[in-house]
Amino acid sequence: MTEITKLAPEKKHGLIVVITGNGKGKTTSALGMALRAAGHDMRVCIIQFMKGDMYAGEWDGVKMLDGRVELISTGKGFCGIQGNPYSHAEHRQNAQDAIKLAYEKITSKEFDVIILDEINNSLKLKLIELEQILGLIKAKPQLTHLILTGRDAHPQVIEIADTVSEVNEIKHAYRKDIEPQPGIDY
Amino acid sequence: MTEITKLAPEKKHGLIVVITGNGKGKTTSALGMALRAAGHDMRVCIIQFMKGDMYAGEWDGVKMLDGRVELISTGKGFCGIQGNPYSHAEHRQNAQDAIKLAYEKITSKEFDVIILDEINNSLKLKLIELEQILGLIKAKPQLTHLILTGRDAHPQVIEIADTVSEVNEIKHAYRKDIEPQPGIDY
Repeated sequence: MTEITKLAPEKKHGLIVVITGNGKGKTTSALGMALRAAGHDMRVCIIQFMKGDMYAGEWDGVKMLDGRVELISTGKGFCGIQGNPYSHAEHRQNAQDAIKLAYEKITSKEFDVIILDEINNSLKLKLIELEQILGLIKAKPQLTHLILTGRDAHPQVIEIADTVSEVNEIKHAYRKDIEPQPGIDY
Repeated sequence: MTEITKLAPEKKHGLIVVITGNGKGKTTSALGMALRAAGHDMRVCIIQFMKGDMYAGEWDGVKMLDGRVELISTGKGFCGIQGNPYSHAEHRQNAQDAIKLAYEKITSKEFDVIILDEINNSLKLKLIELEQILGLIKAKPQLTHLILTGRDAHPQVIEIADTVSEVNEIKHAYRKDIEPQPGIDY
């Protein structure tokens, strides 16, 4: 029989985690942390920047987690990509609203984990300002974990973070003209 | 109002996805795909190689997904790391049993997604053979997705895969002597 250890940190930390890079597995990694946190009976809030124009499996997936995970998609799709019909001003308005919402959720103290999905590239695309991200980080209660995903994370955000992973694409099925597949890609 | 598109691929593919590298976010990414797949009402089987000696939030998290995700931890912790009391032979026996179990699950056709967590490093650590991984890939029904996680993925596995991401550590909280935190690290 394998003996099972149950870890419990002597000192609790509210971590700042950044998941960046151009590969597949940033949002999915954040979703995995949400699932893991739910297993620990923690409360999670996911705010998706830009996303909201395309159904994704996680929208229904998190509903199964007995109210532990709230997911809000605030956007109109990826700003500037081919086929997206919305102007930069429209995307910016959405992202600005998402920042306000993030501030409310972070300071509500209702959540153990806050995930700001695609916030890094929202900054890169000038939908929000660096000071706004820094303001959210500063507003974070000490024991709340804050997870920031999206490519092109700002160097100052990386500097402040405790854990930073860069997900690099080695290859991706879409380059072989394989369409996005449910459960894997969305 | 943002119009919501619901994608549906014209051609379904069973993808081979590899998540490798030394950074945080490989298992968590696979867990995110499990959550996403559950949202699509797909069936998922997760077999964890080596893991099983330490409680992780995902063990209870997946139980909330209404029977859609089965998770089996087959191991005795990471082979060869400091503090792990089990011999290479014991780890190898466990990994060999996990391969048999993986074969049964893959060929059962009961699952849309099979996740073999930490299988890549199990090969690197000589707990299993390359031919065994290639055999599992070959046995995969056409429309089943197979996700292989763990650092040091074998070049031939990367060659066969459709989507490969490498998660690199930029920084990690443990280097600042912050202990693993529930919901984030386990």
